[in-house]
Order: sequence, then structure tokens, then C-alpha cells
Amino acid sequence: MRITLLTDFGTADGYVGAMKGVIAAIAPAALIDDISHEVPAADINSAAQTLSRYFFLYPVGSVHVVVVDPGVGSARRALAARLDDRVVVAPDNGILTIVLAKAQDAAVHVIANRAFMRETVSPTFHGRDIFAPCAAHLAAGLSLKDVGPPINDPVKLSMPRAVAEADGMRGEVIHVDRFGNLITNIPGELARGSVVHLNGREIGHVRHTYADVAAGTAVALIGSEDSLEIAVRGGNAAETLGAGIGAEVSTQIPG
Amino acid sequence: MRITLLTDFGTADGYVGAMKGVIAAIAPAALIDDISHEVPAADINSAAQTLSRYFFLYPVGSVHVVVVDPGVGSARRALAARLDDRVVVAPDNGILTIVLAKAQDAAVHVIANRAFMRETVSPTFHGRDIFAPCAAHLAAGLSLKDVGPPINDPVKLSMPRAVAEADGMRGEVIHVDRFGNLITNIPGELARGSVVHLNGREIGHVRHTYADVAAGTAVALIGSEDSLEIAVRGGNAAETLGAGIGAEVSTQIPG
Amino acid sequence: MRITLLTDFGTADGYVGAMKGVIAAIAPAALIDDISHEVPAADINSAAQTLSRYFFLYPVGSVHVVVVDPGVGSARRALAARLDDRVVVAPDNGILTIVLAKAQDAAVHVIANRAFMRETVSPTFHGRDIFAPCAAHLAAGLSLKDVGPPINDPVKLSMPRAVAEADGMRGEVIHVDRFGNLITNIPGELARGSVVHLNGREIGHVRHTYADVAAGTAVALIGSEDSLEIAVRGGNAAETLGAGIGAEVSTQIPG
Repeated sequence: MRITLLTDFGTADGYVGAMKGVIAAIAPAALIDDISHEVPAADINSAAQTLSRYFFLYPVGSVHVVVVDPGVGSARRALAARLDDRVVVAPDNGILTIVLAKAQDAAVHVIANRAFMRETVSPTFHGRDIFAPCAAHLAAGLSLKDVGPPINDPVKLSMPRAVAEADGMRGEVIHVDRFGNLITNIPGELARGSVVHLNGREIGHVRHTYADVAAGTAVALIGSEDSLEIAVRGGNAAETLGAGIGAEVSTQIPG
Repeated sequence: MRITLLTDFGTADGYVGAMKGVIAAIAPAALIDDISHEVPAADINSAAQTLSRYFFLYPVGSVHVVVVDPGVGSARRALAARLDDRVVVAPDNGILTIVLAKAQDAAVHVIANRAFMRETVSPTFHGRDIFAPCAAHLAAGLSLKDVGPPINDPVKLSMPRAVAEADGMRGEVIHVDRFGNLITNIPGELARGSVVHLNGREIGHVRHTYADVAAGTAVALIGSEDSLEIAVRGGNAAETLGAGIGAEVSTQIPG
Repeated sequence: MRITLLTDFGTADGYVGAMKGVIAAIAPAALIDDISHEVPAADINSAAQTLSRYFFLYPVGSVHVVVVDPGVGSARRALAARLDDRVVVAPDNGILTIVLAKAQDAAVHVIANRAFMRETVSPTFHGRDIFAPCAAHLAAGLSLKDVGPPINDPVKLSMPRAVAEADGMRGEVIHVDRFGNLITNIPGELARGSVVHLNGREIGHVRHTYADVAAGTAVALIGSEDSLEIAVRGGNAAETLGAGIGAEVSTQIPG
């Protein structure tokens, strides 16, 4: 059984280590894969996107732990869900929005059964005391229904959607990755063949890959998640083009 | 068998990779859990605290490797210890101070047997040449006594302790975590019900969790390690309050 | 079976998570060891050095994935190689230069067989769509020859070599590690007994270890990879001495 971890904890404080120790004590044979602990602190939107990049690639039966949890200790619920036969535990703060939207079938439960939490639950560290033990028990065979009752109203983030215009699409940058690539909310299949503008500046036609332009040149292409992306070959588009999350992007089919 | 790694090596140079390769060659089935490689360089005190946050949560039989080792190559000893049936290997520089104090039973040995080191031992990389192979052999079943002779004088860090005053406790900030939370050396059970001051500035009563105050407001609470902690809800207390390690914290039971 | 990952992806975007998910789906029992995802973006030279620090320490049968790939989507080939019975997959951009030079026997193939790639191959993410699935299949028993045809002209980096002079060696700094240690291309066995200069400034005799000089003092020694290294005890040589990659280093055997 394989359990993945995505948090905004960093690693140096040992909080992630504490979660791993709890998992190892309950499920000694579990393979634990770090996804990241470098999500920007409390950035639920960013974590939701990151989760969507690996969740469905993992095989059925995988258990995913996601703890970006600025509301820890408040009334926000803790969730355990099964989406297309993969399990995820996470705070009910919208972090599951994208994977819920993509899943063919979904069952979402509240984590309520104290039997699967640590004996003492700190109001500030549910990663260690609720999510890690719950994930380990689920990986070890616990049935989702034994975790707590089903719900049908998990919190959803409202995400900006690209809109159709007379001659193309209008959307925005929704993520800047480590390389400075600007990832937009315009679906790739709607962008193909278009000319792209970023904040009113022409980037050019949608190309196939970085190498289709000269080094240092901006390029629009369909990224690895099938959405329109703006990059600078061998460079950092966010810095070079002075654009970040929310920057306006439009596509026009040449007339 | 499960082996954890805590170092200040970063990952990019491949030093951690070298340790993992040595472990894998000796104990091919070992599950290797990264705790962190981002301990501030040579910060023994910080590493000692980090270690204490996960050490006892891991199941008995786990093997923990800790290499924050500014004295590598000097006369400092290399240690292998069993604390409450968990094993740890580390330089003898005080890094075990907290876990030694918390353990019910402890046996500490010097790593002296060349049979369990790499054939050539670099004077600057004992992580690869002494600690990793020793940990792998211990995980694979080697008896602690075969590593080297027992000692009873491991190096201990002197750690600031909170002191009782007429109306409460006086202590200090001993750690700032990734979120900017200020973790103090005042035990939680002695702080409950108190009013807290940080550097003479009133923070307020000890609360249950972040959500008990408004966003952006400072809050004192009992942290996940059962010590008094000062946070800013949705913010960074270290930055907002201009405080760090060594800042004075006091608690007063209202008269 | 054990698979290691070295990339310049960072972790926060979930690209590494995507690679791990692909591997887990093909080889569910694979142990996945992170080496690093913090290689400086597109720094092939740095990655080649990092790879050489762990590659041969891992046991035979290990599968290593290296994706630092600024040429992704261009005509550059994708390689799978067996070097001394360890397997590595990587772009054909020189990243294997050092391990190829060190290997006793090597077979290098181009990854060409679409059966072992993801069904759709993104032109910008071969880590997920080509390298990860290929590595997982190889770890699961696929024969290297079934990946694609052998080649004998993998791209090699030209690396600066130290040269012999009348009274010693002249070389340069080729890596600065996390601690600010300056690692040179002068072989340790040729430096022993020498007096070392860095950018014309005398560092002193080659010593055994950091502790042979006072705190804060520069010291030359033979590093853990058997090359000449310049450090500052308890400090950061790169900062203190104002030197980085390319800085001139010379050794003189005292007359």
C-alpha cells in the first residue's frame, strides 16, 4: 500500500516526520511518497492544483494525504473521500475542488470516529492527530464508511473560468510553476491554432514546444495538463514578461 | 524495517543520495523516510528539537539517522543508541539531548567497529561512511553491542529552562517554525489559564486554538508539543511581533 | 526494486508527484528514493556531478531517473543505459558524462519503443510520459534492448580538467556545495602535501579535515569525492573567500 503526503509544513520542524511516524506505527509496511511540503503556507488554491497533477496517475488503492489547513482547530470538517477508487484525506476547505470535479465517482465522508484518531487531538496539528492516522488505517484496510458519515456538501473553491468571446477565449493565469511558466485556465483544445495575448501583449501563435522558438523568446503552447501555457524558452516567463497569477490571457482564431 | 534521515545537507549536492545508496546496498528492503535535509547548517539545537517531534511516534524497531555534524573529522565520537526500543545513530554533539531526557530506558554506544563502516572513511563525510552503513546494519539485525562499547557520558546541550515566579512562569522562545509560530520552553500544563506577555507586551489569555481570535491577531495557546506557543492567526508571529529565539515570555495567573 | 529520482522540478507544482504516480501504477512495489528536486533549473553540469555522488553507491539492479531537461520536446534523444549493472534513464544532454566515464562497462540505448511510454506524450513533460514509465518498466524486469536501439554517441559535456605544471597542478572550482565548500577538479592524490592557492591567495597546506584549523579559517583538504576542496571551518568558503565556480586553484609541492 502506498500513501502520499502533500503539505505546506516544510520539513525542517519535524511536523512531517511526526506524520510519517504515526503512519509507520499503524501501517508498518506502507510506502510513503512525499509529494511536496513546500506548498506556499495556507495556499489552498495552489495545493488543489498540485493535487490534481498526480492524484489520478497513482494506481487505484492509493491513499493521499493533503494538509494545507489554515482553519485547523476551527469548526471546519475533516474529510476522507474515495474518488475513482483512490482515497484522499484532507481538511474541508476546498482543496479537493479540482479532483472532485474530475472524478467519475466520488464518496465523501466526514472523519468523525475517534477510534481512528490519536488519543489526544491537538487543536493545532490535525495532520499528525487526525489525517495521518486516518490515512494509515484506510491504507491498512479500514472501510471509508467506518470513518464517519457521508456528506454531499464539501466546500468548493470558486475558480476563475475562461470565457468564450467572438473570436476566441479570454482567461487568466492560474499558476506560475517553478520554471516561471504561466499556466492558464484556457483549455488546450480551445486554444489550438490561436494567436495568444498576455496582458494585451502578443505572444504569438500556439506552438508545439519550447524548442519551436529561439532561446529567450516567449512562446505559447499546450502544457502537460492540456491547458494553454506561456513560457520563455530557456528562461522564466513570469519574470521576463512581468506576469503572475491573475494576468489576463486571450486567444484569437486568425480570421 | 524503516530508516529515517535528518540532516543539514540539503539535497542538491547528492550527499543524501550517497547515504541512501549506502543504506540500500546493505539493507535492500529498507524503507527510507526523509525527515528533513533542511535543518539550518550546523544548527544542533534545532535538530535536537526536530528529532524529538517524531522520534517516539515511530514504531519500535525503527532506525533513525541524524547527521548535523559541524565537528566531523575531529575527536568527537559517533554514537549509536537504543531509546525505548528505537535506534538512533548520530554524532556525539548534544543532538540527542531531548530524546535522551524523554526516554524511559536508554543504552548509548560509541560506533567503533570498523567492520560496519565503509572501507575508506572520509574525514569530512561520516554520514556516508559511518552513520549510514551503521544504521543499515542495525536495521538489518546487527546488535547494538557489536557496534562498539557502551558509554554513559554522551554530550548534552544546556537548554534554557522556564522558571517559576511568584505569579506564573518566565521562559523564552526556543524555536520559530515554518509558519512563524513562536514555540516557548514553558510547559503547557503550567501555562493554562494564564495571561501571556512576549517581551513585555501582552498577548492575552491562553486560548484553545488559532480560530479563537480574529485573523491577524496574536494568540497564545498550548502547541502540539504541549508547550506554550505564540502565533498570529493567518499570519507570521515572528515577523508581526518582531520576536525570535531567546525572546522573553512570561505567564501570570490572574489574581 | 528501488528507483531514484533526480530533477530540477522542485516539488510544489506536483510534477514529481506525477512521475511517482506513473511509476507506482506500473511498478506498485517499487521503493522510490528522492535524491533531489532542487537541482538549479536547467543546470546539466551540476546534475551530472550530483548523479556521480550516489550512482555507484546504490546496489546493482537499481534504476535511476534523471530529468534536468531544458531541451525537452526538441530533437534531443531520450536515453536508457546500463552502467556497471545499474540502470539510468535521462535526456541525452550530457548529464551522464561523469558516470559514463567512471563505469567499467556501459550499454546506452535510445528510448524509442512507444509501448513503454504513456499513451499521449506531452512535448513538455517527458519526465512523466517517457522517463518515469520507462524506468518503472525497467525496474519491473523489462530488458534494456526492448526499450530501443543501442547508440555509441551519447552527448558528452566538455569538463575543465586540471593540468600539470612545473611544480604542481592548476585547476578550478567546479562546484559549490550547500555549505559553501569549494570543490575543485584537482584529484586528491595529486594535491596531497601541496600548498594551495585560490585566485592567487594562499590557503595553506592540504590538511586532513576541517578541525585541523581554527574556526573561521580557510582550509584545503581532500574532500569526500577524493578531489581537492577548499572550506572555511564552521563557515562558508564561497562567501568568505568570494569565490565560486570557475575560480582558479593551484597547488605547489614545496621545493
